[in-house]
Amino acid sequence: MHQGRSFIGQIKPVQGQTISICGWIYHLRVLSKTTFIVVKDCTGILQCVMPTDLNNNDLHLRLDDCVEINGNLNLDPRSKIGFELQVTSIRKLSESSLSQLPFNASSEVEKVSMEIQLENRPLVMRSEKSGRIFKLQASVIELFREYLRKNHFTEIVTSKLVAGGTEGGTNLFQMRYFEKVAYLAQSPQFYKEQGVAGFERVFETGHVYRAEPHATSRHLTEYYSLDVEMGFINSPEEVIELERGLLNFMFETLNSEHGEALKMFQQKPLPSLEKAPIWEFGECLERLKQAFGRTDLVEDLDGEAERQLCTLAEKEFGVSAVFVLGFPLSARPFYTAPRGTAGAAQSFDLLFRGLEITTGGQRLHRRSDLEAALKRRRLDVLSFESHLRMFELGMPPHGGFAIGAERMTAQILGLTNVREAALYPRDRNRLTP
Amino acid sequence: MHQGRSFIGQIKPVQGQTISICGWIYHLRVLSKTTFIVVKDCTGILQCVMPTDLNNNDLHLRLDDCVEINGNLNLDPRSKIGFELQVTSIRKLSESSLSQLPFNASSEVEKVSMEIQLENRPLVMRSEKSGRIFKLQASVIELFREYLRKNHFTEIVTSKLVAGGTEGGTNLFQMRYFEKVAYLAQSPQFYKEQGVAGFERVFETGHVYRAEPHATSRHLTEYYSLDVEMGFINSPEEVIELERGLLNFMFETLNSEHGEALKMFQQKPLPSLEKAPIWEFGECLERLKQAFGRTDLVEDLDGEAERQLCTLAEKEFGVSAVFVLGFPLSARPFYTAPRGTAGAAQSFDLLFRGLEITTGGQRLHRRSDLEAALKRRRLDVLSFESHLRMFELGMPPHGGFAIGAERMTAQILGLTNVREAALYPRDRNRLTP
Repeated sequence: MHQGRSFIGQIKPVQGQTISICGWIYHLRVLSKTTFIVVKDCTGILQCVMPTDLNNNDLHLRLDDCVEINGNLNLDPRSKIGFELQVTSIRKLSESSLSQLPFNASSEVEKVSMEIQLENRPLVMRSEKSGRIFKLQASVIELFREYLRKNHFTEIVTSKLVAGGTEGGTNLFQMRYFEKVAYLAQSPQFYKEQGVAGFERVFETGHVYRAEPHATSRHLTEYYSLDVEMGFINSPEEVIELERGLLNFMFETLNSEHGEALKMFQQKPLPSLEKAPIWEFGECLERLKQAFGRTDLVEDLDGEAERQLCTLAEKEFGVSAVFVLGFPLSARPFYTAPRGTAGAAQSFDLLFRGLEITTGGQRLHRRSDLEAALKRRRLDVLSFESHLRMFELGMPPHGGFAIGAERMTAQILGLTNVREAALYPRDRNRLTP
Repeated sequence: MHQGRSFIGQIKPVQGQTISICGWIYHLRVLSKTTFIVVKDCTGILQCVMPTDLNNNDLHLRLDDCVEINGNLNLDPRSKIGFELQVTSIRKLSESSLSQLPFNASSEVEKVSMEIQLENRPLVMRSEKSGRIFKLQASVIELFREYLRKNHFTEIVTSKLVAGGTEGGTNLFQMRYFEKVAYLAQSPQFYKEQGVAGFERVFETGHVYRAEPHATSRHLTEYYSLDVEMGFINSPEEVIELERGLLNFMFETLNSEHGEALKMFQQKPLPSLEKAPIWEFGECLERLKQAFGRTDLVEDLDGEAERQLCTLAEKEFGVSAVFVLGFPLSARPFYTAPRGTAGAAQSFDLLFRGLEITTGGQRLHRRSDLEAALKRRRLDVLSFESHLRMFELGMPPHGGFAIGAERMTAQILGLTNVREAALYPRDRNRLTP
């Protein structure tokens, strides 16, 4: 830190106190006698008032310049935070471009095209409104970890370079790994199951990769997955209860710590999921038929059905969220446990505000069941041998789920494109910045 | 959870109380009349006592089986935790292999070959001693985040698929990305600098990749990097002070929360780094010459020099740690700020217990300086254009550092091979499990 620098958010309001601050010029108004400079640092925003001739015409202050300012505090009840800074000296530490910036941090960033926003991420982060997307996302990620740590889960770190896919080999990114071929991990699924066999309860927060051939508003080729898995369960309902508790904790904390962000994005406080129903897949089809006359769905839900089910849940229970349980087994990965004998899976999605944000369920935990499932799907049992061996080392019945951090952030703030909730999104067409 | 299941670590000792637990058989002793079963779950270990004939000869209990046990608590002062469980019924939830396991969770895992350990990670995690390596690592990672959050840092998530390298293109993993070529990120350096231009203070915990052609005991091709970067600094010494405060916080907390692990690995409590000296690179060469007669070092330190410098620091200051500052600029990446005009860099390493665990420093923050540095190194300025543009958006003077989580874990516990501190290590020869 600069010698004696004060963080704006930690200044104690003492009339006349001499302080020094650093930050960016967030707003600037130059009148003939007085110049008003609003400075932003990582803790807050402060208005600084300066005689225009102090500027001496040499500084050429511009929005988004980095400055160091010395001055005296002036308590002023008209100020939002109760005080402002009377500038005695100002020094430019670094300047923004001599030419016009595409936009400024204090611009209405949401009116700037997605493309230009992505090419100028520092300005987006610096924006009072848009920067909050990523501050909130940081909390989403951390609150996920915090709740699980408190509930006996151990964080694990697992490799993203793997010798094969978890789900049979589609949409995998492939690369040369010295003399071998490697793939980018689509999911830490196998590793979290090993983690369960070791620690009983594990979680991981990290990147996963899908070579999605289409670039839609809800798909990324690289996303940040909040993954959890627990052992010694009897049913997927126990996994749902874990998720309910987790999300209630996260939502309550986000409401209290990011209330300002929710307001700025015109969002109501996040709801409790206590009343979110658990509906069987078959029941969902029935409800969609009755309420919306839909008869076209068989194996899976589509985006419209997800929105419709959330509407129904909102009407009936006052919360736009549904746990859909018992998807057709054939539409789920081979390691999914069956629910009954009629072709359903112990597998669920959480639909929230019209979009699937979680997939989870109970998994098969016996080697013999996994081998049979692989064979039924005509997958090569031998190529899964190193994974199957893990089920001979003492594998409890287990299940878990995963949340996409970007999707969840987008749903919480009502963003229409998941790219708005990814600092550096990757899709079929985008590999920079 | 199984209906009414108690976590072992949360049992209240009430004589005669009926409880149900789940876990693995960690120790097993079958005498003619009595069977002793030590059960482990994610919270602790409990001895269960059972009449041998209750087993009924049908269960064929084996080490590392998953079981559910019902019984009554029996307070017993001879027990380490003050009570044991009198078994009334036992059920096998899942069994370990019918054939002999390569080792058991309760074996002396450190005597098992690295290869066999890696092929049986669940048993290593389940081991009372070896599992603590990864529990401690989880704390290392989380304490890093916790300290930084408390000091106004924002966690960021940045892409690991990039269009070019940060350091000029060596040791990069290359892959096909639809119609383009992508590389796995060697470091989030450029992104954390963008983060500084946005949030002033940022950190990231995530994987980075180096296509290291040699497989040594200290190198991995994929490791978990604890990365931090801060703006508005005057010198790299401020970055060192941040790291000192961070590590002191981490070490103190590890001493109190993982004291048992340190003891099991025959390690003394972790030291305060308050007294760890900052030595200039030139001073280090001089000290190495005087104390060890070394005259062979010019541009960089080697492994032996790292050990020797730590020995010197321990003698003089009582702590086996040195911040080496002012490495030759030519041996550091192009974005490194110069220290004076004699070819030194504002760049430092932290040597801890004989090994480099951190690299950090102050970076160039003006576009013109970066362009000049690229040209001096005959790197193609144009190919860095998208990065250079970020320096026109208001970039404060800044610096930061990175800690390798696996290396740090290994140094803390005195492990000789960094692979022991990586659940799923990757090196030139290893891509599984």
